[in-house]
Amino acid sequence: MPVPATPPAGQFDGGCVFIDGAYAPLSEARISLFDWGFTRSDVTYDVATTWKGSFFRLDAHIDRFFSSLQKMHLAIPYSRDELREILHGCVRAGGLQDGYVAMVCTRGVPPRGARDPRMAQNRFYAYALPYVWIASREKQLSGIDLHVSERQRISPASVDPTIKNYHWMDLVQSMYDAYDRGHDTSCVVDAEGNVTEGPGFNVFAVKDGRVFTAGRGVLEGISRRTVLELCGTLGIPLCVGPLSVDALRGADEVFLTSSGGGVLPIGKIDGKPLPPFPGPITTRLYDGYWALHDDPAYNDPVDYGA
Amino acid sequence: MPVPATPPAGQFDGGCVFIDGAYAPLSEARISLFDWGFTRSDVTYDVATTWKGSFFRLDAHIDRFFSSLQKMHLAIPYSRDELREILHGCVRAGGLQDGYVAMVCTRGVPPRGARDPRMAQNRFYAYALPYVWIASREKQLSGIDLHVSERQRISPASVDPTIKNYHWMDLVQSMYDAYDRGHDTSCVVDAEGNVTEGPGFNVFAVKDGRVFTAGRGVLEGISRRTVLELCGTLGIPLCVGPLSVDALRGADEVFLTSSGGGVLPIGKIDGKPLPPFPGPITTRLYDGYWALHDDPAYNDPVDYGA
Repeated sequence: MPVPATPPAGQFDGGCVFIDGAYAPLSEARISLFDWGFTRSDVTYDVATTWKGSFFRLDAHIDRFFSSLQKMHLAIPYSRDELREILHGCVRAGGLQDGYVAMVCTRGVPPRGARDPRMAQNRFYAYALPYVWIASREKQLSGIDLHVSERQRISPASVDPTIKNYHWMDLVQSMYDAYDRGHDTSCVVDAEGNVTEGPGFNVFAVKDGRVFTAGRGVLEGISRRTVLELCGTLGIPLCVGPLSVDALRGADEVFLTSSGGGVLPIGKIDGKPLPPFPGPITTRLYDGYWALHDDPAYNDPVDYGA
Repeated sequence: MPVPATPPAGQFDGGCVFIDGAYAPLSEARISLFDWGFTRSDVTYDVATTWKGSFFRLDAHIDRFFSSLQKMHLAIPYSRDELREILHGCVRAGGLQDGYVAMVCTRGVPPRGARDPRMAQNRFYAYALPYVWIASREKQLSGIDLHVSERQRISPASVDPTIKNYHWMDLVQSMYDAYDRGHDTSCVVDAEGNVTEGPGFNVFAVKDGRVFTAGRGVLEGISRRTVLELCGTLGIPLCVGPLSVDALRGADEVFLTSSGGGVLPIGKIDGKPLPPFPGPITTRLYDGYWALHDDPAYNDPVDYGA
């Protein structure tokens, strides 16, 4: 479907949504209460970021989004190139350098009285906002305190975690578990009691110079993938497989990965400090993550016009 | 919080929404793309019905809604009586006799940049639409063909099923499993392979004059409860506990319960007919269900004004 001409840079200063086939201010970013994307969380999405005016690994996010769409029996009326044009357009119109850029596809609304999702016209939305951090700068410096909740992440036998989805009740409730106990954020476990992920991030442990993270039952995060690749290029030994709660608590270093901040060192697990903070391996991966933001191979500069 | 005066009967003919503290036409029934109710499915809801101008078991739905709110750390600014007034107001303004009446509470939107759900102002929505049937009248008469999917319902260890929620990806995907195989709708199983529920309904089997349905890991449906109570008053033996897929396939009769149609007889399981259809026990419960709609103890007539 043809994409409308990109608005001038900063026309919707501070953020822009693409909705019903047109660019608009964020105040118009609304969906129907009857869209199955809301009433059944029958929706997939992806979030890319821009940093200093460039998209980071945009192709990887677009690949994952189209893969999620296909697994969900969802479709958007745009090609890869048109999607890329829309995402760039939202950032440009929002006048953003460091941006949080979402693409969303919902099932839509079946005709009145019908309950057949095949009869619904899928809906596409995109928007760009200022970059979002998983944790505030102060909290990152003082050391995020991670609570390990006993709640179980929704099983892959129910919801395929490789489809990026909004099924987060377990994660949000685990945040309340953390707050009730005086911690900052949380992660949840699988049915075998191994660590999976938290609200919007993957979890890594470092022990005796080796990096550990869950191999299944988690979102295949692009930031997670970047760290796995960095372990290879930096020569850091890596184990992808079950990560027990005991191993996490006994780790030398713990960090999170997220498009909302990249590599985020953890300062405490359930209130117990993890010195040294930030640890040496975490610091190498943190530096490596941000160094890639200057590598042309990973970047796609936004055209802000004249 | 004071409730505005109820609009005249039929002012929003065909359906009415209550949004941002006011009654409005359905075209205004929209929520922010940034509401966590959408982006994290961090929301609870309930659906009551009206039949011939009366709410059916409205107290039970209101009880369950307030119970869900409390478990979710959500709150609405209305008392029970005010909520009742709003729901009645939506039906009256919609000019509806047979209605589908939803009450919804979302987390809302935390302040820009914050990711703490405690900082969000919860949002309340209600709406009334024409009564919705789980299956068309023709399909009900010809016999709904139920597919038993191998997909697992989201576990109670992840999402408490007694909180009415929009975590339906597993259920919607199971509908596609059913369509791919030529069936009409679907139910899913638990981790032990026992039958749980389908998209918007509980599942019952009848064998040798005895009624069986799952005891846990399912929504505690009000229609389900009505059938359990009817078994008592009608002297029909009842077993609430694990219901194996084999037991379902070997049943004499199978039926669904839902606010979207009450007691709905199933004609086929994965294409295999279930004669007699509809079976005698299903018919007694069907008749009993609709007879209760004439019982003043279960009814709350809508005041349509002069």
